[in-house]
Amino acid sequence: MRKIHVIGIGAGDPDQLTLQAVKALRSTDVFFILDKGEVKSDLVQLRRDILDAHMPEGGYRLVEARDPDRDRTAGGPAYSPAVGDWRSARAAIYERLIAEELGEDESGAFLVWGDPALYDSTLGILEEILDRGAVAFSYEVIPGISSVSALVARHRTGLNRVARPVQITTGRRLAEGFPDGVDDVVVMLDAHQTFRRYTDEDIDIYWGAYIGTPDEILVSGPLAEVAPFIEDVRAEARERKGWIMDTYLLRRNPGL
Amino acid sequence: MRKIHVIGIGAGDPDQLTLQAVKALRSTDVFFILDKGEVKSDLVQLRRDILDAHMPEGGYRLVEARDPDRDRTAGGPAYSPAVGDWRSARAAIYERLIAEELGEDESGAFLVWGDPALYDSTLGILEEILDRGAVAFSYEVIPGISSVSALVARHRTGLNRVARPVQITTGRRLAEGFPDGVDDVVVMLDAHQTFRRYTDEDIDIYWGAYIGTPDEILVSGPLAEVAPFIEDVRAEARERKGWIMDTYLLRRNPGL
Repeated sequence: MRKIHVIGIGAGDPDQLTLQAVKALRSTDVFFILDKGEVKSDLVQLRRDILDAHMPEGGYRLVEARDPDRDRTAGGPAYSPAVGDWRSARAAIYERLIAEELGEDESGAFLVWGDPALYDSTLGILEEILDRGAVAFSYEVIPGISSVSALVARHRTGLNRVARPVQITTGRRLAEGFPDGVDDVVVMLDAHQTFRRYTDEDIDIYWGAYIGTPDEILVSGPLAEVAPFIEDVRAEARERKGWIMDTYLLRRNPGL
Repeated sequence: MRKIHVIGIGAGDPDQLTLQAVKALRSTDVFFILDKGEVKSDLVQLRRDILDAHMPEGGYRLVEARDPDRDRTAGGPAYSPAVGDWRSARAAIYERLIAEELGEDESGAFLVWGDPALYDSTLGILEEILDRGAVAFSYEVIPGISSVSALVARHRTGLNRVARPVQITTGRRLAEGFPDGVDDVVVMLDAHQTFRRYTDEDIDIYWGAYIGTPDEILVSGPLAEVAPFIEDVRAEARERKGWIMDTYLLRRNPGL
């Protein structure tokens, strides 16, 4: 039976790999690398560096494919269907890779940034392939340090406050309003700096980009004060590198 | 200047240590181990096993102290103050340990289960000690695999569903009602199996105890069906081992 490892490789610092992830790498025959196109080739290179560091003797195969483009213009109610189409297109590619590139007794791996549990589509795609029934395999998930954990560790703060909840959400959701019932909100996948909508509230922000890499940028402070600075820094970094991955925690202070 | 490492050591599987955590262990002179009393001595032993595995040549000192008892009888509004008192009692112990057991140029470490960012008091305590001003030190946080990440990895599911939020909360909060605005809720620190209150809703549960250890137990399924089974399994395991650490994800299905 074919075996798939879904390996969380941390937020960008190669030392954030767990020992379990290193063992899984070393027991993998074929690595599948999906390239999102040139702008993110830095990330493909980082994955290759990880393989070079932990499997210097080689002995594995690398199979690269082009990721389907996601229709990012679809907004509002169309968002989930667009993601669904993209996921199915991706499932077709993964299915072919597993069926054609992996021998019956071999193991393959997908290397996932952060933690495969958080805003990543790999697990859903593997389930979709198994549902189709054209190729059989078992799979295992190796958890990774999420960008959320890495962000707050670098800021040396907690995710939650004592005995209180924390919510992890998307920029798109945050644009609909500050979530009910929580004062600590982590925002991922925000291409529009949605935090700018909340500068009139008593909120602290802990923001970070390229966390754990040599390009890491961290900014924290009262949102109203630092929001314009984050905007500038983010725009400059995005221009310089051609892409940005950033995450932030909003911590609202309880009203008096 | 004294240096403190706050090291997330994962949810119980020694292989869940990151390479960064191993490096931090190896650059530590003094490990502070706070014992919560005999019932949790398994956890102290697990920490010792980690040190033996990664520092077989020794060369470090181990300083053990007794953790103050927390007043767990305080419920409702008294909860946070009780936690505050306990934190201050703990800060007094940590302050003494750092001042007396750590030389001016030495580094000390606290080994934290899971991720120091999630429902752990170490960072808050260190800030409290720095605020008191009696002893100076710098500190660094090494993120770890949280029990939340480990739970969903073992269940091979995600934390969030596509483009939707997830909330991490406590059993005490869940007892006040299912959180607003989210259908995916991770519950920690629940001594009362609060999930039983929601068996009349269309919810799936992904439950786990002692995750990543040889004693690991996983149960998942429709809440109404598996809740009684989890109750039994949990009570039996707790009786047998003398303590339990469990976590669960509640995934509510959208109404039609």
